Amino acid sequence: MPKRAAGAILTGLSLDRTQGTPLYRQLYDGLRDAILTQRLMPGERLPSTRTLAEELGVSRRTVVDAFLQLYAEGYLDGRIGAGTYVAQTLPDDFVKTDAVSAPPISESFSSTPPLSRRFLAQRAHTDHVLAQFQTDKEQGRAFLLGTPALDEFPNALWGRIAARIGRGTAAHADSYQHSAGHLPLREAVAAYLGGARGVRCRAEQVLIVAGAQQAISLIAHVLIDPGDSVWMEEPGYFGAKGALLGAGAHLVPVPVDGEGLDSAQGRRLAPNARLAFVTPSHQMPLGVTMSLPRRLALLEWARDANAWIIEDDYDSEYRYASRPLAALQSLDTHERVIYMGTFSKVLFPSLRLGYIVAPPNLVDPLTAARRLMDSHSPLRDQLILTEFMREGHFERHIRRMRALYHERQSILLEAARRELAGILDIAPADGGMHLVGYLPPGTDDRQAALEAKRQGVRAQALSYNYLEAPERSGLVLGYAAASPAEIIAGIRGLATALRRR
Amino acid sequence: MPKRAAGAILTGLSLDRTQGTPLYRQLYDGLRDAILTQRLMPGERLPSTRTLAEELGVSRRTVVDAFLQLYAEGYLDGRIGAGTYVAQTLPDDFVKTDAVSAPPISESFSSTPPLSRRFLAQRAHTDHVLAQFQTDKEQGRAFLLGTPALDEFPNALWGRIAARIGRGTAAHADSYQHSAGHLPLREAVAAYLGGARGVRCRAEQVLIVAGAQQAISLIAHVLIDPGDSVWMEEPGYFGAKGALLGAGAHLVPVPVDGEGLDSAQGRRLAPNARLAFVTPSHQMPLGVTMSLPRRLALLEWARDANAWIIEDDYDSEYRYASRPLAALQSLDTHERVIYMGTFSKVLFPSLRLGYIVAPPNLVDPLTAARRLMDSHSPLRDQLILTEFMREGHFERHIRRMRALYHERQSILLEAARRELAGILDIAPADGGMHLVGYLPPGTDDRQAALEAKRQGVRAQALSYNYLEAPERSGLVLGYAAASPAEIIAGIRGLATALRRR
Repeated sequence: MPKRAAGAILTGLSLDRTQGTPLYRQLYDGLRDAILTQRLMPGERLPSTRTLAEELGVSRRTVVDAFLQLYAEGYLDGRIGAGTYVAQTLPDDFVKTDAVSAPPISESFSSTPPLSRRFLAQRAHTDHVLAQFQTDKEQGRAFLLGTPALDEFPNALWGRIAARIGRGTAAHADSYQHSAGHLPLREAVAAYLGGARGVRCRAEQVLIVAGAQQAISLIAHVLIDPGDSVWMEEPGYFGAKGALLGAGAHLVPVPVDGEGLDSAQGRRLAPNARLAFVTPSHQMPLGVTMSLPRRLALLEWARDANAWIIEDDYDSEYRYASRPLAALQSLDTHERVIYMGTFSKVLFPSLRLGYIVAPPNLVDPLTAARRLMDSHSPLRDQLILTEFMREGHFERHIRRMRALYHERQSILLEAARRELAGILDIAPADGGMHLVGYLPPGTDDRQAALEAKRQGVRAQALSYNYLEAPERSGLVLGYAAASPAEIIAGIRGLATALRRR
Repeated sequence: MPKRAAGAILTGLSLDRTQGTPLYRQLYDGLRDAILTQRLMPGERLPSTRTLAEELGVSRRTVVDAFLQLYAEGYLDGRIGAGTYVAQTLPDDFVKTDAVSAPPISESFSSTPPLSRRFLAQRAHTDHVLAQFQTDKEQGRAFLLGTPALDEFPNALWGRIAARIGRGTAAHADSYQHSAGHLPLREAVAAYLGGARGVRCRAEQVLIVAGAQQAISLIAHVLIDPGDSVWMEEPGYFGAKGALLGAGAHLVPVPVDGEGLDSAQGRRLAPNARLAFVTPSHQMPLGVTMSLPRRLALLEWARDANAWIIEDDYDSEYRYASRPLAALQSLDTHERVIYMGTFSKVLFPSLRLGYIVAPPNLVDPLTAARRLMDSHSPLRDQLILTEFMREGHFERHIRRMRALYHERQSILLEAARRELAGILDIAPADGGMHLVGYLPPGTDDRQAALEAKRQGVRAQALSYNYLEAPERSGLVLGYAAASPAEIIAGIRGLATALRRR
């Protein structure tokens, strides 16, 4: 549907500065009224916030606030900056409501206390991605993102350790624990990271957290004030954006090219940002490895700007071709890098365990903040994992999965060569658990992902990972969770979906 | 040590408004310099922020900001508003530093990026309480707060269910889960709360969270914008204060008397607060039950002010005398009450599971926020707990513990009658896991708690629970975790400690 001229909407809107009601609420009321009375139709595109602000003679902030509230309540879809649409399906409550006999809009609004600004911003930016994640539970495992081969996990072994731990648990182990985590587990993680990733740290710098999502939330909570600028890889990981917005961050998209994030561009866009979020080993989603010159340039900026860097090493365990570059953290001479990783990609996501390696002067603040956020991670799983690492099962499982995922990547590439030539351009990657396939320029990748879904195939639209207008159109495909047969069937389904368009 | 006149400190401080450096940083530099060069001695009391602001001709905010940074870095102890002292033990790094050869202070400050304002505020208010919690791990169980009788927990039974679950777990159960929690567990919680607490809800309104601390953090995150006023019981639960400050809340202390929080006072102090935090069943720490008229008045205010209420029902399972009042939530006709509880007080704290019962229109926002905070609670523990509840072990364990804790309260009271008459005035309570003993007026309860600690007895100073100057002086004593022998020995130790003073 074409973008609507502002004029047609404006006829129904009247803002009154002499009224006690804030302008954004008046605008919210007016737009909601237009939606409920179908002067704005489901799926219809709204004018940009800038256009609407100019036409109404109000600040853009006013328009953004009204839009955020409408997003939060389910009246709008899409994303600010990338097109805003009236929701196709309105919230249940409103579908049932007869717009004529409903109470006056303003009264109905004032009867629901508003939600926080930080939450509305989080939600507006991530709702559409989350919705995609949660609705397709019943679908197959091709091409599920960020999920390991769960049927290959040594469940029986894990269970035996659990039973052993359960029998031996002292009562004091059931009480409140140290918020930084179980010390022997922190020691095991420090030893592993030192050997496998070149991370330089003592066990005291390791914090056990409830996965990568909490790691980012926690770091953002301690470091970011509302309005602080944060460099975000463009395209970049949506979960990180959600967590950073939760702290009130102003996200600055910094372009990623074949060498990773370009800090020269970052310096131009936001020289005084307080934090940069990067995935140097295997960029999420593009898969590139940050080059050494770029790594050094990024560290130099952090020193100059007195800023922090989050290094999210989410799937660095899986490297197939060249020897992996050591972690960015190992090059950092000024204690600017906060390193983090997760056990979700190696063990299983529902375990909810991950880690932060903090510079010494952040250990105590992060621990105190964790205490006030949710106390600590459950102890028993930490005890099981400690044994699992100490007895060598952890590294053995990684080695097995590395070979398995490498093979699965080859199977996917081979099938794609046969079925997708000229339709989806997939290049091999040196590591990780996913690949990006590029669509012909101008293709709408959300539409393509929707077609794939109709064929029973999961594919994430690359454009979901952009803050601004996407430069390229493509599909992000996870291959670790699916069996070879599922991968081959998935590629066939994808071919059908993409040919149909 | 007596309070220091501002004059003596001021001689060393020079603030320059023409400089680019913000005034609070100049003040921070000056005070830090005075501490490092020992013009301000360890343990020395600083002038109040008000006095210092007047003397220096700056805003009180400037002084508070400088103090917060000094707290965060370990230079100051105490609490703003209740006396601020130079820390007895300075942070390691600075003890090692030779103040003369160290780099200029301002340079050294600028080399550490600042922490977020919300975190510094959290920390300043809670550090001293947290420190007390974490340093005495090695001490006995009399009179540990908020901890159940861990050696009475049916560990073997729990382990058997865990083993059964482990064998039967399907691989998909290891993947990412719904952020609101495992649906059968939500159903079991809804059924339990309906029967035991009169809470009116459907399973869809129940969110499984990682304990009470996360429940409050999550709710605050979704509802509170920086600067929003929140009614806090005075005295009240420090963990809730920490979580609310983390969202930038302005805490308004509303007095608690024999009928609980007085919303008439709240209306006077902050009529337009956005949220009230209350513990109506068994006030933390005073132990009173909120009367019915006060409950109705509180609900009426929330309706009038379009505000929310958090009802923290943290230990309502344990009620010994009269029949418990139904939850505040059950009286709420306007969907204003967010009910929450924890499994820490019934099962064991290191499990990290609790629940929120949200009004229908908050379920979806809280779920989305949880997704971005830390995804969801680990699944396997949820599966075990579901079985534990379904098979009736949960209610059976509560009944056993109710009898046990009632007995332990009687033993404590009996021992106190013998040993503490005239020194500590402890009244019985109708429920819960702790009692408050009042000290003679004018006694310094922090000093008393310290003396008790020297006798191997844990006792929390009542004054830790106040935001403003404490009205009464006392000790908060938990009796659920300790055996009868430990309770009797603990009371003897307490008598020795208090007589010594």
